Amino acid sequence: MEVDKLLFTDRLYESSKEIWEKSYQHPFVQGIGNGTLDEDKFIYYMQQDYVYLIDYVKLFAIGVQKSHNLETMERFAHLLHEHLHFEMELHRQYAAEFGITRKELEQTEPAPVNLAYTRYMLNVAHNGTLAELIAALLPCAWHYAETGKRLKEQYEDRLEHNPYRKWVETYSSEQFGALGEWLIELLNELTNGKPERELATLEKHFLITSKYEYLFWDMNYHKQDWDI
Amino acid sequence: MEVDKLLFTDRLYESSKEIWEKSYQHPFVQGIGNGTLDEDKFIYYMQQDYVYLIDYVKLFAIGVQKSHNLETMERFAHLLHEHLHFEMELHRQYAAEFGITRKELEQTEPAPVNLAYTRYMLNVAHNGTLAELIAALLPCAWHYAETGKRLKEQYEDRLEHNPYRKWVETYSSEQFGALGEWLIELLNELTNGKPERELATLEKHFLITSKYEYLFWDMNYHKQDWDI
Amino acid sequence: MEVDKLLFTDRLYESSKEIWEKSYQHPFVQGIGNGTLDEDKFIYYMQQDYVYLIDYVKLFAIGVQKSHNLETMERFAHLLHEHLHFEMELHRQYAAEFGITRKELEQTEPAPVNLAYTRYMLNVAHNGTLAELIAALLPCAWHYAETGKRLKEQYEDRLEHNPYRKWVETYSSEQFGALGEWLIELLNELTNGKPERELATLEKHFLITSKYEYLFWDMNYHKQDWDI
Amino acid sequence: MEVDKLLFTDRLYESSKEIWEKSYQHPFVQGIGNGTLDEDKFIYYMQQDYVYLIDYVKLFAIGVQKSHNLETMERFAHLLHEHLHFEMELHRQYAAEFGITRKELEQTEPAPVNLAYTRYMLNVAHNGTLAELIAALLPCAWHYAETGKRLKEQYEDRLEHNPYRKWVETYSSEQFGALGEWLIELLNELTNGKPERELATLEKHFLITSKYEYLFWDMNYHKQDWDI
Repeated sequence: MEVDKLLFTDRLYESSKEIWEKSYQHPFVQGIGNGTLDEDKFIYYMQQDYVYLIDYVKLFAIGVQKSHNLETMERFAHLLHEHLHFEMELHRQYAAEFGITRKELEQTEPAPVNLAYTRYMLNVAHNGTLAELIAALLPCAWHYAETGKRLKEQYEDRLEHNPYRKWVETYSSEQFGALGEWLIELLNELTNGKPERELATLEKHFLITSKYEYLFWDMNYHKQDWDI
Repeated sequence: MEVDKLLFTDRLYESSKEIWEKSYQHPFVQGIGNGTLDEDKFIYYMQQDYVYLIDYVKLFAIGVQKSHNLETMERFAHLLHEHLHFEMELHRQYAAEFGITRKELEQTEPAPVNLAYTRYMLNVAHNGTLAELIAALLPCAWHYAETGKRLKEQYEDRLEHNPYRKWVETYSSEQFGALGEWLIELLNELTNGKPERELATLEKHFLITSKYEYLFWDMNYHKQDWDI
Repeated sequence: MEVDKLLFTDRLYESSKEIWEKSYQHPFVQGIGNGTLDEDKFIYYMQQDYVYLIDYVKLFAIGVQKSHNLETMERFAHLLHEHLHFEMELHRQYAAEFGITRKELEQTEPAPVNLAYTRYMLNVAHNGTLAELIAALLPCAWHYAETGKRLKEQYEDRLEHNPYRKWVETYSSEQFGALGEWLIELLNELTNGKPERELATLEKHFLITSKYEYLFWDMNYHKQDWDI
Repeated sequence: MEVDKLLFTDRLYESSKEIWEKSYQHPFVQGIGNGTLDEDKFIYYMQQDYVYLIDYVKLFAIGVQKSHNLETMERFAHLLHEHLHFEMELHRQYAAEFGITRKELEQTEPAPVNLAYTRYMLNVAHNGTLAELIAALLPCAWHYAETGKRLKEQYEDRLEHNPYRKWVETYSSEQFGALGEWLIELLNELTNGKPERELATLEKHFLITSKYEYLFWDMNYHKQDWDI
């Protein structure tokens, strides 16, 4: 009887837990949650994250292409559609509040960490299996949902007047969480029975992009530039 | 004054005209239009075309990935969505009428011409530019829209009792035609100012997949198998 | 004690055995072995196979790119080098004997089966794992080595005056055989411990390209053209 | 009469000139030239550059795959072979002097700048044209050859006792310079007649990887780590 069979994503969660905690405690993340984050840092983030998302949704398109059956294709096409019309719309609304147009958002030059992060994922997606693609893109989806929920709980009392309330509401929502849950399920299905050497590769991707998640918050906090 | 500037897609249309005419006159196509096509041939076609479409929509996903701006990405994502939920639904409805389930449709093994055709396009899409991808996939979209409209006009009087009426209505519709029109526009935009050696490559892709369109009708008519 | 553990490539060999036998008995192959093949069919084949090889060596380049360690990269780079300078040189020599220049060889338009075969492999290579790439390209390397050896043995007595002697000598050579053996070893290593659903995909690739091997001989025998 | 037609690579050279000068003046580069660079920084560099090269040679493999004719394929295959057996051998020899084995070299974890740089190039190579691939990988080949020659000239008097003499000799050699020259020629050929919007994309790739060249020297100088 396999009562306590560890899911592969449990293993991933366990090995990335310290990095994720460090991310959650980062002043940028805490500043969103308690509403004290400087507005200019948040604007910088909205711009950087918008061009990040343009590359991130391409991963779902590669997911469509690498799917082994129509149902999986339809799910990735759905993720593509949702991110283009739901998550990116949130950014456009915030940007509009700060007087930034859709065109300006799109023309943001990615800062070094941003570029490094998306190129890492895109390269895994091109060269690797569907499981590798998911392992690489999952930290973003999963960590955001968890961060949203945790911030909402921790700072519920002051959410009403938090200027970043819409951010917290979006990422703590059921709708957003559901996107990540399907990816988790699919990854567990795809990795079932895989030899350890392949699981180790997937874990490596997951840890590297978990690190990039932390570095992305740090990039925003310091409004990183190329300096050359 | 550039009064008579030839669009690149005019050149493509001109060079493929004979092949397209041959396709239109193929007994399979005429048989759809006048309603005399054997049902077993049409069922074979519905099955083959369904797995063809599974690969065809992957081309739109690669289009998302190779797009140079967000607007183009959104349009390819829209094409992906429309084909998954509109054109493929037509096939599912027809199949259901003939007692074929969605699962059976999906598990059809592609016949040689079908496999050759989709592999050709997928390979162009992986290796080539966005313009190459469009040049390769355009004959299918364009030729179907044209065939639909022409059959509707030619056989309008007997459309009411044609068992393949829904097919004619779908492909002659404005909605379907609009998908191809956007691809035509985009290809003209992307090829503007390109050197002749690159245009010649695009034309070659277009002619090869135009030939595959003809061969696909012929494959259906003879219910081609691997014979080995 | 796992005394009789079946290698994955044993399974592949077993399931493709009938197709391979059919290939070996094809009049084109027998005609090479006993020297009675029409010269015009052989010339057609040299031309078609030359452009086939141009795409085939690209698979080794993709192998370099998908390798997980430097040693494997070096081996694929070696295969690339050997095929460019050894196997293709054989074709150039034969072609020169028949008055066909290197440039003419290279500009041959691939016949339908040729194009379908290479596009199938290239697409597996782009989208799949290193194991999938090998499963797809292996029938060509393995089947040629086996055919070369078997023809040499069967027709040894009349090899001296066979106009296709150099062909038989090349593909029955130790040097050529060694290329395939390394691929077999690597595929067994990469598939070790893989779940059945993934092995089934690999087997499918292997069977499809085994069929294409047969169809390629048949294409040469009938000097296939597009007929459109 | 087009007397002074600017080559596209002249334009690239012009726009990257300041970044390249900054690289040349970097204490790491100057320290190689005058022999004063700390040995531990050089060892760090040998290790990082070795894993960099493993990814860099993959770009030549992608070049083979994206080539439009056999001659270009052969040249990329030659670059692949030369780098695997000539440039990487230099690193292995240096590493052996410092007691680092080939295996250890290969298992080096790439530092952030290293990973960002190679992933940028690999992604351009997968998604882009052959011209884009060359534009992205050229700064490394071209800038190294120029740096080698310039250091050799500037520090010729003290080259004899410079511990990094072999480095200077390798990269200032005719043999190494010739690799870059062919890439320059090919890029000029491929860009001939291309519209400005496409040239601008190529220039962008070239400038980004020129920046990465500078950042790579800086990474080595500070022995960068992930710090997370």
